[in-house]
Amino acid sequence: MSLIVQKYGGSSVSDAAGILRVARRVVETQNAGHEVVVVVSAMGDTTDELLDLSAQVSEHPPARELDMLMTAGERISMALLAMAISSHGGVAQSFTGSQAGMITDGIHGKARIIDVDPHRVRTCLDKGKVAIVAGFQGMSRTTHEITTMGRGGSDTTAVALAAALNADVCEIYTDVDGVYTADPRVVPTAQKISKISSEEMLEMAASGAKILHLRCVEYARRFGLPIHVRSSFSDHEGTWVLPSPDDKIKISEGVALEQPIISGVAHDRSEAKVTVVGVPDIPGKAAMIFGIIAGAHTNIDMIVQNISTKGTAKTDISFTLPMVEGEDALAALRAQQAEVGFEDLIYDDKIGKLSLIGAGMRSNPGVSHRFFQALSDAGVNIDLISTSEIRISVVTRADRLDAAVRAVHQAFGLDGEDEATVYGGTGR
Amino acid sequence: MSLIVQKYGGSSVSDAAGILRVARRVVETQNAGHEVVVVVSAMGDTTDELLDLSAQVSEHPPARELDMLMTAGERISMALLAMAISSHGGVAQSFTGSQAGMITDGIHGKARIIDVDPHRVRTCLDKGKVAIVAGFQGMSRTTHEITTMGRGGSDTTAVALAAALNADVCEIYTDVDGVYTADPRVVPTAQKISKISSEEMLEMAASGAKILHLRCVEYARRFGLPIHVRSSFSDHEGTWVLPSPDDKIKISEGVALEQPIISGVAHDRSEAKVTVVGVPDIPGKAAMIFGIIAGAHTNIDMIVQNISTKGTAKTDISFTLPMVEGEDALAALRAQQAEVGFEDLIYDDKIGKLSLIGAGMRSNPGVSHRFFQALSDAGVNIDLISTSEIRISVVTRADRLDAAVRAVHQAFGLDGEDEATVYGGTGR
Repeated sequence: MSLIVQKYGGSSVSDAAGILRVARRVVETQNAGHEVVVVVSAMGDTTDELLDLSAQVSEHPPARELDMLMTAGERISMALLAMAISSHGGVAQSFTGSQAGMITDGIHGKARIIDVDPHRVRTCLDKGKVAIVAGFQGMSRTTHEITTMGRGGSDTTAVALAAALNADVCEIYTDVDGVYTADPRVVPTAQKISKISSEEMLEMAASGAKILHLRCVEYARRFGLPIHVRSSFSDHEGTWVLPSPDDKIKISEGVALEQPIISGVAHDRSEAKVTVVGVPDIPGKAAMIFGIIAGAHTNIDMIVQNISTKGTAKTDISFTLPMVEGEDALAALRAQQAEVGFEDLIYDDKIGKLSLIGAGMRSNPGVSHRFFQALSDAGVNIDLISTSEIRISVVTRADRLDAAVRAVHQAFGLDGEDEATVYGGTGR
Repeated sequence: MSLIVQKYGGSSVSDAAGILRVARRVVETQNAGHEVVVVVSAMGDTTDELLDLSAQVSEHPPARELDMLMTAGERISMALLAMAISSHGGVAQSFTGSQAGMITDGIHGKARIIDVDPHRVRTCLDKGKVAIVAGFQGMSRTTHEITTMGRGGSDTTAVALAAALNADVCEIYTDVDGVYTADPRVVPTAQKISKISSEEMLEMAASGAKILHLRCVEYARRFGLPIHVRSSFSDHEGTWVLPSPDDKIKISEGVALEQPIISGVAHDRSEAKVTVVGVPDIPGKAAMIFGIIAGAHTNIDMIVQNISTKGTAKTDISFTLPMVEGEDALAALRAQQAEVGFEDLIYDDKIGKLSLIGAGMRSNPGVSHRFFQALSDAGVNIDLISTSEIRISVVTRADRLDAAVRAVHQAFGLDGEDEATVYGGTGR
């Protein structure tokens, strides 16, 4: 008997038919002899509908009340799923985040899990029931207020619960068959990856692959938990995201890691580039600039400092950041322009980021050559470059991004013969 | 400074505009120097939409999960109201039933309040904030499960909170201006009652007046709490429901009780009549029959036992009960027909009940004469009669009920000159 945590996203439970389909799958899993915990997101459009209502009554809704509002979404889907499971002959009990012991910090809207106390869930399983847990939500340890975890929160809930319950696997059900070598909407010949290391998946997620959220992969990697990303619309095997190959893989013999050179190509259209022009080239200025940015609670991605132009003793510093945080960062910098002594700020949100990920590239010196050659052959100009041991990322013009992704995908022989199937798209 | 508990029903918060209108009223009340606690129902159609979803996934949804589902409704409206209050410059905090300390028994779907521990609400008021509390829901003392209170639950929440907080008044906002001398949809010339005793209001509610639920009036009467029933669509004074005239009325000098002879005419179309035919006329048989009915958890209203027909030593017992509980009651009786020894059961759901209520009638012997004369002049046949000190009720044919109500209303001089305004209609 295994303990399996299954997470279903909003597109899998978008209507009654979807909920009944998920319920059947859950009951089948239990009937196959497993203990099952289900983490569920809000139904399809619920999140958007609730956000729309909130926008109608308030321009800047208080964060606490927004969390109270949004958590109604999973409350609805989890109760309906419990009912649907009983229609399929199973017995299930639903739990809110706080009932399931998801203890978070007190930051409304993007709370982080600081502890998981799943004793009510464990008791529920011990009674032979299916436990259904609301994703995305928890309770603050200090204030006892209801919190939500922001994007990727439901995946993170599932992985955190799986780790706390010492589950054998966390299955993330979504509207695609698994993780692809590139976004199938951009590269129709992208192929499903059958196994990928947590490390690579982390780079994929950080580079814009939306299928799994960074936090959830980080969590799974830390606890050595295998994730199986698959579609709730089919019974096909999906993608196994496996912890470090040094760890024992518990699941089955077929999933031992064999490292391909390249796992895939990820891209990201959500970033903007800020260039701080004419920064005095003296020690401490970069630290000052990034201190200001950090004070505005902005997450910076890539950073490039150009070589100081001879004689001027001035330099330019460029960095990328989420487009939605652009205004705050600019305002914070402008407020301290005199103190830092820079000349100008240039903001560019017409950029795209492309990343090539593969654990094999650290021992393959030819990878970066082939990468830049492919971009050059496709006539794509490169704006910024950054690398890690298993990733190369470049920033290009936004309107050249798709061509760049396709060129790189083809250059590394990732194209398959069939076109991938694409369904909807989800948020949480 | 007074402490005012305001309860808004679903029709008052049916959309964003309604929520903003309620928010403005709440902020105005606070700005006038009062402490304000708001109890809110689910938005307009939410309850029906959630019930519809549940019906799509389950024929007999587990009661625990149904409560979990339904409580999402108030969660949405209370969070939106808190946001809307902040848009109007106020500061509010929303509380679920369990956060507000509404402790109930464990009967899902019709839980009863057994304790109220409003310390979080009190703290919120002490900080100068408006407290918003989800109506209709609580938490079971023993199981810590989320419960709902069934019909009238939001009104009862408001009154129970008002009593626990020692509030000065509980304002029940609805879609009509107050309590009328009859249902304005049946009697267009019905007049708004400006003051009515809790005792009479209790009889009105028990007799089918839907504006206030029986449980809430009972609660207010027990705690000596004045209720002000009024419309959220206007600023008019509504109807004051005042505890016993012996109690000190705290509100204002204008509301001291002066007892009119008759308060109003109530009617009810939701009951059915069961006649148990040919019951052996020996002691203990009636107790046996009503024991069976009680075992089926059915609430009986009127009971009439006909005089035993000479020689047969048999009698007929008739009673009325909610139509929705009719089948269960009949099944329970049939299952023990042999033991009780009755001959037959007659079920009649084409009946209507009319009640005349007035604390003044106990000292006015002419009331019942005028009452029956009016019915007779209108050609209405009477099926059953029952009375209390301040009420006369009769059962008539359903298709004669409206005519009967109008005749009695006119006979007691209750008709006004203007027609009443009627808006929508709510549930919880």
